[in-house]
Amino acid sequence: MRQFISAADVSDINALADKALAFKKDPWKSEALGHHKRIGCLFLNPSMRTRLSTQVAARQLGMECIIFNITSEGWALEFEDEAIMSGNTVEHVRDAAPVLARYFDILAIRTFPGLKNREEDYSELYINQFIRFAGIPVLSLESSTLHPLQSLTDIITIRECIHENPELVRRRPRIVLTWAPHVKPLPQCVANSFAQWVNAWGAADFVITHPEDYELDEQFTRGATIIHDQDEALKDADFVYVKNWSTFRDYGKIYCNDPGWMLTGEKLAHTRQAKVMHCLPVRRNVELSDEILDGSNSIITQQASNRVWAAQAVLSEMLEAMTITKR
Amino acid sequence: MRQFISAADVSDINALADKALAFKKDPWKSEALGHHKRIGCLFLNPSMRTRLSTQVAARQLGMECIIFNITSEGWALEFEDEAIMSGNTVEHVRDAAPVLARYFDILAIRTFPGLKNREEDYSELYINQFIRFAGIPVLSLESSTLHPLQSLTDIITIRECIHENPELVRRRPRIVLTWAPHVKPLPQCVANSFAQWVNAWGAADFVITHPEDYELDEQFTRGATIIHDQDEALKDADFVYVKNWSTFRDYGKIYCNDPGWMLTGEKLAHTRQAKVMHCLPVRRNVELSDEILDGSNSIITQQASNRVWAAQAVLSEMLEAMTITKR
Amino acid sequence: MRQFISAADVSDINALADKALAFKKDPWKSEALGHHKRIGCLFLNPSMRTRLSTQVAARQLGMECIIFNITSEGWALEFEDEAIMSGNTVEHVRDAAPVLARYFDILAIRTFPGLKNREEDYSELYINQFIRFAGIPVLSLESSTLHPLQSLTDIITIRECIHENPELVRRRPRIVLTWAPHVKPLPQCVANSFAQWVNAWGAADFVITHPEDYELDEQFTRGATIIHDQDEALKDADFVYVKNWSTFRDYGKIYCNDPGWMLTGEKLAHTRQAKVMHCLPVRRNVELSDEILDGSNSIITQQASNRVWAAQAVLSEMLEAMTITKR
Repeated sequence: MRQFISAADVSDINALADKALAFKKDPWKSEALGHHKRIGCLFLNPSMRTRLSTQVAARQLGMECIIFNITSEGWALEFEDEAIMSGNTVEHVRDAAPVLARYFDILAIRTFPGLKNREEDYSELYINQFIRFAGIPVLSLESSTLHPLQSLTDIITIRECIHENPELVRRRPRIVLTWAPHVKPLPQCVANSFAQWVNAWGAADFVITHPEDYELDEQFTRGATIIHDQDEALKDADFVYVKNWSTFRDYGKIYCNDPGWMLTGEKLAHTRQAKVMHCLPVRRNVELSDEILDGSNSIITQQASNRVWAAQAVLSEMLEAMTITKR
Repeated sequence: MRQFISAADVSDINALADKALAFKKDPWKSEALGHHKRIGCLFLNPSMRTRLSTQVAARQLGMECIIFNITSEGWALEFEDEAIMSGNTVEHVRDAAPVLARYFDILAIRTFPGLKNREEDYSELYINQFIRFAGIPVLSLESSTLHPLQSLTDIITIRECIHENPELVRRRPRIVLTWAPHVKPLPQCVANSFAQWVNAWGAADFVITHPEDYELDEQFTRGATIIHDQDEALKDADFVYVKNWSTFRDYGKIYCNDPGWMLTGEKLAHTRQAKVMHCLPVRRNVELSDEILDGSNSIITQQASNRVWAAQAVLSEMLEAMTITKR
Repeated sequence: MRQFISAADVSDINALADKALAFKKDPWKSEALGHHKRIGCLFLNPSMRTRLSTQVAARQLGMECIIFNITSEGWALEFEDEAIMSGNTVEHVRDAAPVLARYFDILAIRTFPGLKNREEDYSELYINQFIRFAGIPVLSLESSTLHPLQSLTDIITIRECIHENPELVRRRPRIVLTWAPHVKPLPQCVANSFAQWVNAWGAADFVITHPEDYELDEQFTRGATIIHDQDEALKDADFVYVKNWSTFRDYGKIYCNDPGWMLTGEKLAHTRQAKVMHCLPVRRNVELSDEILDGSNSIITQQASNRVWAAQAVLSEMLEAMTITKR
């Protein structure tokens, strides 16, 4: 694996998920694989779970992991070609990326969208410029439009639940991604990415529900059933993924913010005792009620803890590809 | 040891201090103990010595140590139960702590008091919520009202000095904790904690001196002699611990800030050539004069360097308890 | 080697450069040297390449490397003797440095000049106070007036190019340090330091060119030819080092900021196909044009990646000196 930016970088999602679950059983089994290898993790935006789980995964593979918080440590990068850098940016990605590529074997990058200019965000300029100028494997720790480590984690977690439930092994599970209210305009990354991965995985009936005006980009949702009536969508769900996102068409806005969209115990009653998922951080009693988060249907802690195994599976694929290349 | 939050978590202070001093003699002797174990250190507030000494101690036990500066890396945690999170906090400790507990074997937390609401600070809500929801061993790196790693260090350092002074082995040493002026209202943590530990240790005559209105919480000071005349208190002291704190009763204020309370060479003359202690950082020529800090009575560098061995003793107890549990 | 602050700390620059290039061939060859040794890196100012390359170098020597961003992690140090610390500084270097010296085997420090008071900056108070009070080997990660790890890197890179070019082995190369425009007043460190090292190395014809009023401190430039006509200076150059600096005499100002001083392809034509160097970060199309940075004459990525080997050579010298001392 040369890069991990989107579901398109994975040829066999089930095989990658199996690899992750094998690490969950035996975290240190490939500790020799990353010996004398280094990953540099560049954070252009804050991160807790993604940062910590990647660090843990790297160490369990025997790699050195170096964290660099670009903004809080005082750097402003330029990404536009031919920029005349007389403003606030102090270094161009064209100059920074090739140097970082000499210091590290794998480069991991987190960069949020500005939510101002849709075209710019959806071009994924930042991470693409890193890929272009680094020339070493690049791992997304969440980019402007996608969050693939989260989505791989989500698939792993869903598969774990399916394996524990004989009924779900026999029939296709129904997975519902539901929009939830929030107090700030959030990126579409997690929702886009979840849609992309569930569609690529192809082993479930997939429904997306949201208020009108919150359509996601069709390039990711195509294949899913879109329903605007949340109650109808939740009916017979086996998994409910709760997530807020801002508008895609009239970009980065909050339109309707109807608190009635918050998932509650009453709504969960329409489902088939659905497992409830969320990528965290979650705004309690805004996106999801306490009763759900603290109840037995929530698999959110399990999901978040699976972040380690997703990262470890992806890093191990990258390391194995390096070894093969070198032979 | 399941948690290290207060002196009450330690059954035998002398034994723990001996353990620390054994590490001082041979820092790497238990390097195998922490193999494949990880400590996560969460800083809700800044730290230098505590952070660095814990990191050093963990590494010397063969552990991986991961630092996360919660605020500067962009996170605001919610600690109140049933909060409707439509404000500034982005994640509830109920959701964060169980996930961190999956990433780490030990969780270490630093959190300062707000100094606005005494009841809230003295409830130790933050660290208690972490303990409640993490379910793994929790280590205090200083909390709202106590600083146990500092106090264990203080006892270790006092015992070292006693062992070097035959006279002090024969009679009970006199330890004086003296209030000192400062420019800002500071927490009572170090003073509370020192009082709690010296009382629990029980091997010294313990005096606390401060201007009226600076009474500390009796739950910690009970057993000590309180004297408001500093000169009288310092008389015949073997150890003088210098520390500022803000008021406890009319909470978090600066009342009297009389520069006459600064410890000077002249005052030290009343003591039995007392060793002078301070937890650092110290405001020179405000809390303590240059002549004392740079003089031969100061054991402050020795004291601060002992932070490593205190942390290593506590971590080793936690690691040993894990191994026993697993058997 | 007890300290690495300036070219004066190095007895044989060529030998040190050879050591660095040996590490470039075999990065892990001395991994045992730093076993159970620790370096603490204190950043009073931001850093990317210096921080990362030092971290990489330390790890390749088997050392533990601990990073501490003093300002962003909430500390303000006092450096003035006899200060009455009732202001903003929270800790004196007299108290902090000896403690850090107990936690680490080597202390590395980065501290920028204030550019307000020349005498103060050129006294190198900050790093000298660390050296004075730490008592362990101190490594400069850039100080108020010098950047020795950068300059050692520069010499290494120049020597690599010479070895690849038989003509340059036979005759003395011509090295030109040229001032370049910038948008902010920058320190003189890199320019001072490069001048100091090239002069100490002594194996080249060395020219410095800058607009009038941008004279550097003679203590560093003495031995170089100073030319105010950039075209004349560039003539027949084998290496062109591009760098901005603020004024030295009327200290810390921007006088002339003539964009005509930006190095372009047209100007490069006057040289002998000179290799172009810059320490990074570089303001594209302000200091250097895209055509140069992206062209075949630029050795800037090679130069920046050599930072690792320079740091590794210096750290290995310090570690070897410790081993000898201990015997």
